[in-house]
Amino acid sequence: MPLQRQLFELAGADANLRFSPYCWRIRLALAHKGLSVETRPWRFSDKEAIAASGQGKVPVLVEGDRWLSDSWAIAEYLEQQYPDQPSLFGSPEGHALARFVNQWTNDVLHPAIARVILPEIYAVLDEGDQAYFRTTREAAFGVSLEQLTEQREAALEGFYKTLKPLQNTLAAQPYLAGDAPNFADYIVFGAFQWARVISGTISIPSTEPVGQWIERMLDVQGGVTRKAPKAY
Amino acid sequence: MPLQRQLFELAGADANLRFSPYCWRIRLALAHKGLSVETRPWRFSDKEAIAASGQGKVPVLVEGDRWLSDSWAIAEYLEQQYPDQPSLFGSPEGHALARFVNQWTNDVLHPAIARVILPEIYAVLDEGDQAYFRTTREAAFGVSLEQLTEQREAALEGFYKTLKPLQNTLAAQPYLAGDAPNFADYIVFGAFQWARVISGTISIPSTEPVGQWIERMLDVQGGVTRKAPKAY
Repeated sequence: MPLQRQLFELAGADANLRFSPYCWRIRLALAHKGLSVETRPWRFSDKEAIAASGQGKVPVLVEGDRWLSDSWAIAEYLEQQYPDQPSLFGSPEGHALARFVNQWTNDVLHPAIARVILPEIYAVLDEGDQAYFRTTREAAFGVSLEQLTEQREAALEGFYKTLKPLQNTLAAQPYLAGDAPNFADYIVFGAFQWARVISGTISIPSTEPVGQWIERMLDVQGGVTRKAPKAY
Repeated sequence: MPLQRQLFELAGADANLRFSPYCWRIRLALAHKGLSVETRPWRFSDKEAIAASGQGKVPVLVEGDRWLSDSWAIAEYLEQQYPDQPSLFGSPEGHALARFVNQWTNDVLHPAIARVILPEIYAVLDEGDQAYFRTTREAAFGVSLEQLTEQREAALEGFYKTLKPLQNTLAAQPYLAGDAPNFADYIVFGAFQWARVISGTISIPSTEPVGQWIERMLDVQGGVTRKAPKAY
């Protein structure tokens, strides 16, 4: 009997709208490992559905009777559990340096994108999630969603500035991991997929290295990210 | 007859004061490969001394009759030329991801440190270099050295913010490259060595992950960076 595998993914009011950057990382990681998965829409208010994971955020991967959370920890689990499938990190050095890419994405790239798209995320959430989302995000960024909408131009400018090291890296090689993508690429691409599913505002010209890399990434793993329903 | 190897390094008025972050990368890379080198002090005005490299910046490595420039290119050359010595990148993925670390350091970390220490660099330069340095740096940053001195507190705050992904990475592992340092660590550490040789202003507490990593890095390769003369 094949192992049952389920992935809880953040969804909007429309259950087919899957936008969480951390969930996209794992969808791509599972495909990279050749592992099938049943995805399940999840909303911020569904804490009970994932209580067995011992925490309250997605992605949550259920494999048999194991409940796993945290995208980095899930990737490390998959790497260890399926060593004969294509590697997510390639080598110990690749693994260690992917952690820096992970932190840069979480600490720098995500906040820069969030300042642009948070109001649009709010608009597509299930009603039951909106109050929670507004409260937590306004506290985190120290401004209201309405102020973020007003500040969008400045936020877009800030976002483009954060891309500089990424542009210069991808000008020299096709993927962050080199000649082929691995989990480091999925980490960063998750952020762009988040922006792409939610908003047409953020669009990187295909004349730029990051724009060209995005086009390549939209084709990897059978084009799973390109096919994803968008909010607009 | 052993191969003659010389490294031109940026120096201050005091020829023993070596502070260029890019030059420190190569000093550590050569030590990592177990290669001896004679270092030669160089100043911005000495364009003729390195003309054979076809460009005007250091580090310049001369090996036999080869003239090499650009720290990234020199590291790639050493890796290819000395494949049986300890690897600078560890693997193709480690090599590819080190490029992102390289770009982040050049594009984000260096400018953040420069805003703090440029006036102090100016003060220790050879007289013949000062006018060139002032003109090029004031143009690059759009402010005068005197204004930078006035803005130091804000610059220090900006610098500490840029450390976030580095702090979070080094909280989880001893080196950027994992259990042992490689060229990715030398790239980033070069920036801290630059700050350390020039100025006592930038000092990361040893209670922080980056501070602890700096202490470890000051001991690698026989403590070559710890022994370097400082300007203060």
